[in-house]
Amino acid sequence: MKFGTIRKNDRDLVVLAGEEDTVLVLEEFMDDAPRTVLEVIEGGEQTRRRIQAAAQGRTGVPVEGLHWLPPVPRPGKVMCVALNNSANKERIKSGPRHPAIFIKAASSLIGHGQPIRLRADFGRVHPEPELVVVIGKGGSDIAVENAMEHVFGYSIINDLTSPTMRGEDTFHYRAIHPKGGDAGAIEYIDTWVSYPGRYKCTDTFGPVGPWVVARDAIADPHNLTVTCLHKNELITEDNTANLFYKVNEVVAFASTYMTLEPGDMISMGTALKAAGAGGGKAVQNIDLNELGGPIAVHISGLGRLSNPVEWR
Amino acid sequence: MKFGTIRKNDRDLVVLAGEEDTVLVLEEFMDDAPRTVLEVIEGGEQTRRRIQAAAQGRTGVPVEGLHWLPPVPRPGKVMCVALNNSANKERIKSGPRHPAIFIKAASSLIGHGQPIRLRADFGRVHPEPELVVVIGKGGSDIAVENAMEHVFGYSIINDLTSPTMRGEDTFHYRAIHPKGGDAGAIEYIDTWVSYPGRYKCTDTFGPVGPWVVARDAIADPHNLTVTCLHKNELITEDNTANLFYKVNEVVAFASTYMTLEPGDMISMGTALKAAGAGGGKAVQNIDLNELGGPIAVHISGLGRLSNPVEWR
Repeated sequence: MKFGTIRKNDRDLVVLAGEEDTVLVLEEFMDDAPRTVLEVIEGGEQTRRRIQAAAQGRTGVPVEGLHWLPPVPRPGKVMCVALNNSANKERIKSGPRHPAIFIKAASSLIGHGQPIRLRADFGRVHPEPELVVVIGKGGSDIAVENAMEHVFGYSIINDLTSPTMRGEDTFHYRAIHPKGGDAGAIEYIDTWVSYPGRYKCTDTFGPVGPWVVARDAIADPHNLTVTCLHKNELITEDNTANLFYKVNEVVAFASTYMTLEPGDMISMGTALKAAGAGGGKAVQNIDLNELGGPIAVHISGLGRLSNPVEWR
Repeated sequence: MKFGTIRKNDRDLVVLAGEEDTVLVLEEFMDDAPRTVLEVIEGGEQTRRRIQAAAQGRTGVPVEGLHWLPPVPRPGKVMCVALNNSANKERIKSGPRHPAIFIKAASSLIGHGQPIRLRADFGRVHPEPELVVVIGKGGSDIAVENAMEHVFGYSIINDLTSPTMRGEDTFHYRAIHPKGGDAGAIEYIDTWVSYPGRYKCTDTFGPVGPWVVARDAIADPHNLTVTCLHKNELITEDNTANLFYKVNEVVAFASTYMTLEPGDMISMGTALKAAGAGGGKAVQNIDLNELGGPIAVHISGLGRLSNPVEWR
C-alpha cells in the first residue's frame, strides 16, 4: 500500500494509491478515516487492513494536477546518513566506523511537484537522490535483528545540498580541549568543523514523496534501482545494494542515540553512481541554481519524485 | 511573564511563574486556558493580557518537586548558532562571515531537573550554557530592523556536546567537485566535514528551561550574565554582551534561509568565558560522563536550569 498527503481547499488529505496513476482520498470513502498519514502509521496493521477493505473496488481520481505534500508532512525528525555509499569508500581518508548522522529540518521538506526555490546567493545547489525510511514503531536501543519491525515503509528524498554554503559554513579553528592530567588546564587543537544548517535545511531543500510505501510491499530494500534525471537526462543510476550500512543497521544504530518516533525519517545516503558505462555526469555537476529543473528521482517500487526549480 | 510546561498525572500543563518560587497552573484558574505554551505564543498579546488578569491575586504552588518539560515541549525546529562568542574570534583561522547554524533534534530536549542520561561509550560530554530565543511570530526574509517583533521571549539551554563523538563523526575525504569549464567533469578536493547528529542531538543532550520569559520582561538581551555551575562550582561567568552576532541579526539571517515558525528556538551560542580573574576551568574541562552532575546554567532574568546526570 502507498500512502500520500495532498493539499486541497486548504486541507491536508490522506490519499491511497489507486490503479493506473489515480489516488483515492481516504475521507471520501471511509467514515472514520485517519486524518493524517501519521495516524495511518500509528494505527498499525489493523488500520491498514481497514483502509484496504474500504478501498476495495473504488475508483480514484487522476494524480494529474494534485498538490502534493510530503507523505508525512511534519516528521518529528529527519535523520540523514552521510557518505553511506560503497562508492564513497575509496574517497574517505578517515571517518567513523559507524553511520554518521545529521538532522535535516522538517521545515525544509516539500512534496512532489512543488517548486525548489533558489536564490542566486545560495551558490551551487545539487541533488542527492536517496532512499528514506519512515519509522512506524518508535523505540530506543533497538537491536539490529528487530530493527525492521520498526520500519513503516519507504519513500524517496532528494536531499538537496549546497556545497557553496557547506564551504562557507566550515570553520578552521583552534578547538579547546582539556589538557590531560590537569583538571583545569586546556590546550588548543587545530580542527575543522562544518555545520549543515543552511546547506541542508534551507526551505525547499527536502523534496520527498510522493508516496510512503508500506514495508511489506518492498521485497528487499537493498535491491532497488535509484535513478536521478535532470531535465529528463539520466544522471545517476545506482542501486540500494551499494548502501554501505543497511536499513536495519542504521535504524538500530540511530536508536541507540536518538529515540525513534512514529513518522521519523531516516535518509539512507546518496546514490552516487554516474549513469552510463563510461561514467556520465555526477550529481555534483548538476547545479540547479545555474541549470534550473526539473530534477527527478526514481526508485523502483517507490515511484518518481520530480520538482521544478524557481528563483526567489 | 514567565511560562513553563510541567507534567502532572500524565498530562502536560502550562504554568505561569508566581511569587517567590511558586507556579500557577493556568487551567486551574482559567476557563479557556491555553493548553500549551505554543498556544500562549500564538495567542499573542491578547492572550497574555487575559492570563495576567486571571492570575491576579492567585496563590501558586511551590516549584519544589515539579516535573518540568521544556517550556515549548516540541518546537518545530531548534537552530543553534555555532562559535558565536567574541571569545572565539582569535581562535578562528577561517570561517563564515555570518552566523553558522546547525539543527538540534527537538527529541533531545529535556526539562529543568530531568536527568541527563549518559553512557560510557559517549566519551566526553561537556555543557554549553546558552541564551535561546523563542520565536513568536513566524516569517521568512525578516529584516534586521523588524526581527525583534518576531521574538516571543528567551530561555536557557544547555547545548550538551560530545567532543568525542564530534571527532568520530568527522570525515577527512576527497569531495567531488565539478571541474570548471566542463559540464561533465569532476575533480577531487581534499575536505573535512563533520556531522552534528549524535554529538549534539543524542537524547537528553538539550536541557532547556525552566521558563520562557516574554521579551518585554528583558530590557536588553545583550546584557545578561550567564553562569555555569558544576556541582555548585562556578565554571564560566560570561555575558551575552559577548555574543558576536546579536539576536536581531541572527533571527533575520536565519529567516532568509529557513522560514521561522512560532515556537521555533534559536540558540545564540555558548558563553565560554572562564570564571575568576586568573581564568578557571573551561566548559570543555567538565566531562559530565566522568564527573557526573548536577550541571546548572543561570542567566540573569531568566532563572536557573539545573540537571542531574545519570548513566544508562
